[in-house]
Amino acid sequence: MKEFDLIKHYFAKQNLTRKDVTLGIGDDCAIVTPAKDHDIAITTDTLVEGVHFPESTSAKAIGHKSIAVNLSDLAAMGAEPSWISLAITLPNVDEQWVNDFCSAAFELCKIHNVKLIGGDTTQGPLSITVTAQGLVPRGEHVTRTGAQNNDFIYVTGNIGDAALFLLHYYGKVQLSDDVIPHVKKRLDFPTPRISAGKILRQYASAAIDLSDGLSADLAHICKGSAVGADIALDDLPLSDIMLNTLGSEASANLAFSGGDDYELLFCVPQQDRLAIENAMKKSGNKITCIGQINQSSKITTSFNNQTVSIINKGYEHFS
Amino acid sequence: MKEFDLIKHYFAKQNLTRKDVTLGIGDDCAIVTPAKDHDIAITTDTLVEGVHFPESTSAKAIGHKSIAVNLSDLAAMGAEPSWISLAITLPNVDEQWVNDFCSAAFELCKIHNVKLIGGDTTQGPLSITVTAQGLVPRGEHVTRTGAQNNDFIYVTGNIGDAALFLLHYYGKVQLSDDVIPHVKKRLDFPTPRISAGKILRQYASAAIDLSDGLSADLAHICKGSAVGADIALDDLPLSDIMLNTLGSEASANLAFSGGDDYELLFCVPQQDRLAIENAMKKSGNKITCIGQINQSSKITTSFNNQTVSIINKGYEHFS
Repeated sequence: MKEFDLIKHYFAKQNLTRKDVTLGIGDDCAIVTPAKDHDIAITTDTLVEGVHFPESTSAKAIGHKSIAVNLSDLAAMGAEPSWISLAITLPNVDEQWVNDFCSAAFELCKIHNVKLIGGDTTQGPLSITVTAQGLVPRGEHVTRTGAQNNDFIYVTGNIGDAALFLLHYYGKVQLSDDVIPHVKKRLDFPTPRISAGKILRQYASAAIDLSDGLSADLAHICKGSAVGADIALDDLPLSDIMLNTLGSEASANLAFSGGDDYELLFCVPQQDRLAIENAMKKSGNKITCIGQINQSSKITTSFNNQTVSIINKGYEHFS
Repeated sequence: MKEFDLIKHYFAKQNLTRKDVTLGIGDDCAIVTPAKDHDIAITTDTLVEGVHFPESTSAKAIGHKSIAVNLSDLAAMGAEPSWISLAITLPNVDEQWVNDFCSAAFELCKIHNVKLIGGDTTQGPLSITVTAQGLVPRGEHVTRTGAQNNDFIYVTGNIGDAALFLLHYYGKVQLSDDVIPHVKKRLDFPTPRISAGKILRQYASAAIDLSDGLSADLAHICKGSAVGADIALDDLPLSDIMLNTLGSEASANLAFSGGDDYELLFCVPQQDRLAIENAMKKSGNKITCIGQINQSSKITTSFNNQTVSIINKGYEHFS
């Protein structure tokens, strides 16, 4: 087990300081001093090899993604990431692997000023559990449960590319060599939408991050808020790679049911649309209105103004 | 994977409320509102089957221990436990197992008023990662690094029984049937010394919890504080079961090198000895003085006032 303890030295090497971390890695606990008048958002996600990522996934991708999926949860609450704890279980100590993992994880942490405050490393089948924490001004967090009738529904970025790569990975679609890296990157290196999340505090009635897929995650908002939704599939923001590969309708279907996007899905009342659109534009966040909340308890989808039903509604991550 | 999501419903059943948990399980993050003028202590520990506990360990023991080892880390910092996040990886969903696990975990949580604020459940080889958080009045936390020359060294409770059970488990000692449950309980159901930890804030110069064993954990204090220590092995607090099984010298040796005690080891300046001894007695915590800090960088051990060297210095948990 001693060699596993050595990994902690990699963790301790993170070159980042935060004033609110009073005591970092190396004692029984870390000690943090949270900012006055702020609440703390806390999330935990485990990634298991063969379940959440294919066995061929690189250490860098795993390092990035294990942090990114947690920061994405913080973004969906409107929180600003602050501290993470990292538990890695590894079958054996491969220094190159650990180095690659940490370098990618720390690169993402650096972008968002996130300090690693605790770590545990154990021997066993590969899995990563991250607990991420973030600060949000008291009472300003955004939940899944506040969507109101007639609110407009938005997503950040483009969706569906991660699912497209998985279709290719399973041999169900053929992608040309030049586009594979682009869609693979969308699966392996998702971008947590932190700056967009902070804007949500002021304007959004509800938000969630897209991990299980637009269909499933929108259902979480609808259930939590006791509302329904109409989605215009032709308005979904899709990449040219996706459109060129599958055509518009099949692309929209995949983007609706696929997962692993780690974009934000959120609802905005009519009177705040202009303000949030401007704020997002100013902060460099692309957002797209894809539908509207209604009073039913159902999600309906349309394409070219015709109601359509989506065949593949489930998405169960990789596997 | 849907069946794994069902486990979250068990998590949500915890019958405990805390005013500082603004939003519990069920959204992208939990939201907590920490008490004014308090710092937060944070610790993460993973327990892997076959590494941290034998495969025959009961779900109840795993549920208790996965929480207890983390609360013990909080106690060693002088923190009062508040919130935990729980990530469980299970090979398959066995409802009885999950029920037993949760009932034992929640029983311990109830004793210490700890709220489960987040959970993740995934399929894979059995392992548990807990992140526990606790509150400590600002600046009053206790570290490993403050021990001073001439401080007196104390431990809570008795030590060595968990190691004795493991010796029996591996067939290296023979225990009579009537005592096995007592020492097995010390391995499977350790008691986090929370009330003792809170007393440390006022009097202790340094503290650590005994997970790797007295020898290894005292070395952490000595290294962190740049001091040495003299330990009187005949003063170690041992159970009658241990003394009757191994005799006094072998018992002391095992208790010195064994692990998994989850008692607190701490240092106290001469002038605070009486006060802390009284405070511990009043709160029902047994403590025993076992030695003294010195200016060397070595740990020396004596038995009957004769310097002795300990043969088995390493302890690598179960395995």
